[in-house]
Amino acid sequence: MTKSMLTLTAALLCMATLPAPADEQLAYKLTEELTVEVGPRLAGSPADAKAVAWATHKLQQLGYDKVWTEQFSTPFWQRGNARLEIISPFPQSLVLTALGGSVGTGAEGISASIVMFNSLEDLMLAKPEQVTGKIVFINKAMTKDKIGSQYGKVVGARSKGAVEAARLGAKAIIIRSVGTSNNRFAHTGKMSYEEGVPKIPAVAISVPDAMQLSKIISKAPEAKLRLNMENHTQDAVSHNVIAEITGSERPDEIVLISAHLDSWDQGTGALDDGAGVGLVMATGALIKKLGQPKRTIRVVLFGNEEGGLVGARAYAAKHAAELSKHVVATESDFGAGRIWQFDSKFGPQSLSFAKEIQQLLSGHGISLGNNKAFGGPDVSVIAALGVPVVSLEQDGTDYFDYHHTPNDTFDKIDPAALAQSQQAWMIMTTALANSTIDFRK
Amino acid sequence: MTKSMLTLTAALLCMATLPAPADEQLAYKLTEELTVEVGPRLAGSPADAKAVAWATHKLQQLGYDKVWTEQFSTPFWQRGNARLEIISPFPQSLVLTALGGSVGTGAEGISASIVMFNSLEDLMLAKPEQVTGKIVFINKAMTKDKIGSQYGKVVGARSKGAVEAARLGAKAIIIRSVGTSNNRFAHTGKMSYEEGVPKIPAVAISVPDAMQLSKIISKAPEAKLRLNMENHTQDAVSHNVIAEITGSERPDEIVLISAHLDSWDQGTGALDDGAGVGLVMATGALIKKLGQPKRTIRVVLFGNEEGGLVGARAYAAKHAAELSKHVVATESDFGAGRIWQFDSKFGPQSLSFAKEIQQLLSGHGISLGNNKAFGGPDVSVIAALGVPVVSLEQDGTDYFDYHHTPNDTFDKIDPAALAQSQQAWMIMTTALANSTIDFRK
Repeated sequence: MTKSMLTLTAALLCMATLPAPADEQLAYKLTEELTVEVGPRLAGSPADAKAVAWATHKLQQLGYDKVWTEQFSTPFWQRGNARLEIISPFPQSLVLTALGGSVGTGAEGISASIVMFNSLEDLMLAKPEQVTGKIVFINKAMTKDKIGSQYGKVVGARSKGAVEAARLGAKAIIIRSVGTSNNRFAHTGKMSYEEGVPKIPAVAISVPDAMQLSKIISKAPEAKLRLNMENHTQDAVSHNVIAEITGSERPDEIVLISAHLDSWDQGTGALDDGAGVGLVMATGALIKKLGQPKRTIRVVLFGNEEGGLVGARAYAAKHAAELSKHVVATESDFGAGRIWQFDSKFGPQSLSFAKEIQQLLSGHGISLGNNKAFGGPDVSVIAALGVPVVSLEQDGTDYFDYHHTPNDTFDKIDPAALAQSQQAWMIMTTALANSTIDFRK
Repeated sequence: MTKSMLTLTAALLCMATLPAPADEQLAYKLTEELTVEVGPRLAGSPADAKAVAWATHKLQQLGYDKVWTEQFSTPFWQRGNARLEIISPFPQSLVLTALGGSVGTGAEGISASIVMFNSLEDLMLAKPEQVTGKIVFINKAMTKDKIGSQYGKVVGARSKGAVEAARLGAKAIIIRSVGTSNNRFAHTGKMSYEEGVPKIPAVAISVPDAMQLSKIISKAPEAKLRLNMENHTQDAVSHNVIAEITGSERPDEIVLISAHLDSWDQGTGALDDGAGVGLVMATGALIKKLGQPKRTIRVVLFGNEEGGLVGARAYAAKHAAELSKHVVATESDFGAGRIWQFDSKFGPQSLSFAKEIQQLLSGHGISLGNNKAFGGPDVSVIAALGVPVVSLEQDGTDYFDYHHTPNDTFDKIDPAALAQSQQAWMIMTTALANSTIDFRK
């Protein structure tokens, strides 16, 4: 056992008598408060500002040594009314959602024939005469697994579909929701445009509606649809909310634990990312109750993750000079499932410490994974700049049943799973903050 | 074995070599066609007329001996835009649906404090000063079971809540959805007004929204809400669609099998009652393929069941003189789950025949129930006038997860369960139509 582990073990033995019953559910209670008292908090909106105020006040109440906010500029995209109808031959409405960042249709709407593709790749192989003047429909299904490995394979239709469809002359694009549930909710999320390519409206329909539309197309290949949608974008500001427990011995060395405070507007952002916010806010506060850690624990609640890591980029720019003092960083942003694996991205000399952390976590059913940790979406920005990262991997089997839909609400969180995660976050963060190891090495 | 059973058994032996593979899924295919090509079909709407045309044409195609429609007058209630917001202290929108028949709020909307009750009964015990000028919220949860026994205990808040709240001076009423799912769908359904009591707007919120609102009220008892809703009612017509396989020996004796053709507007009415429509349409057609039954099999697809059995009442009035010739009636209107029990409501001398039918069904996992069969909502109108009824009881454990919500779509139907039901419907209907027993005795 290394010297660092002796210190750590002492701290954890102490922790064994704690936390008090109320503390066991601290992350759960914080998540409840955020989702009930603020609810949806789209970046740049009044509710986003309310979330920033809530988090700032709450972090102060929780006993953090320092709490501050860092403002950044961000577009504030707002969803307006949206309606998608089959106009012939089988008139009916479909359940849709605007994709984040999409332009509207104008008051007159868009009416056109549909053309279906099984994937973004198939669309990219199409000829302009197949697509010009039509509404494109990409009908690619997503399957579920523990690590959400299919998300990356399907989400391209959402992020790049509008550009590829517009290149071929499409008037609008509809995608099958990037989700795994057959509940009739449409899955929103960020889409992008490209300079020089016409901006066309982009929407997602629910999985049952994609099945329905596909059946309609098989009976009536020339089916016509009408899309009406009003969205607006304006300039706004948002904030990263930052709090620290100051290190007792190495206050300039930063262990960064994070989540993102913003959410999509459809649900109350309980799984994405209220639970992550609750977890990291609770972690620092509960560790402080056990005594000051050696290194500084910095909690960062990033703003506007959903709009494209806007807060994370602002953080990286503002803290560029300090990144060498970020000894390790991590984020909780994959729902509220039980943690089952610990991954690191350390230098080779630090790998034995990763193993030691995992051993401390093994009592909670957590195994050792790999040294290719992602760290989390916001943290990936500073990871790319050389900051070592770790990941407490959550079971995300059901995550994409709820993610980015109106169904992402507090009742979907299992308090026992979140309590397990809170324990794991406390153990891992204590170990990282009480260590003196340079994880870059 | 009785003589009737010998005939029946001969027919069923014949049936054993049938149906052809395509026929096994006939109910499923019919349900798919109705829900895809027509979709939602609210009574009195253009889609309702389209459903009537579809059913008429399809029954003719299926080889029924006679097919006709019977027109009746009906109100056509139409849902408009609806929005429900917490305005203080925690601004956010809730997922709601207008209850069927509700008036709107007027353009200015209704803003008021909320007052919560745990049940309709609790509301009825309240004093006017608790309720006057407020928006009432009835937060009664529904639990699930195979027979949906809780529905009747909870649905009173929907049907009578507006009247009871208005008597006490409320401005509007919100109920927790009469449903068993924690998905964020609000459950619509018929509500009623009473002569002499002010008509106030009535809406349901989803189960997660009811949980959220209840949490908000516990933190802020004086929470204020705003409701904006535009609904419209106009005079319209609809139709019962009727088809017969003429009896070979007793053509004037009618075995009535039925479902309802209309649906709520939110889903595509797959479980309620597309599956029932598919089942009874398939049953008559497949029996005819095996040869003409002794008695006439009359398929009735009732119009506007959802608006309050409007088509069923029109049928009972129009066929009053003929009801004594209705030897038995039944309806399929409880989703698409597997059939697990056969119930009758026969005279005492016919009970042994009920047992014989159940024995024929026992190979499909169907047991004998009681002699208190309900028959089905539409059929209950003529049952009250003395027509014997039977019920093939479906497993409705999940029915109220989908019922009256946008999530009632075709993908929720298990084709194997529907094929089992189709077999049971064919066996029972053949037995009833080839019998000469007077079930009233």
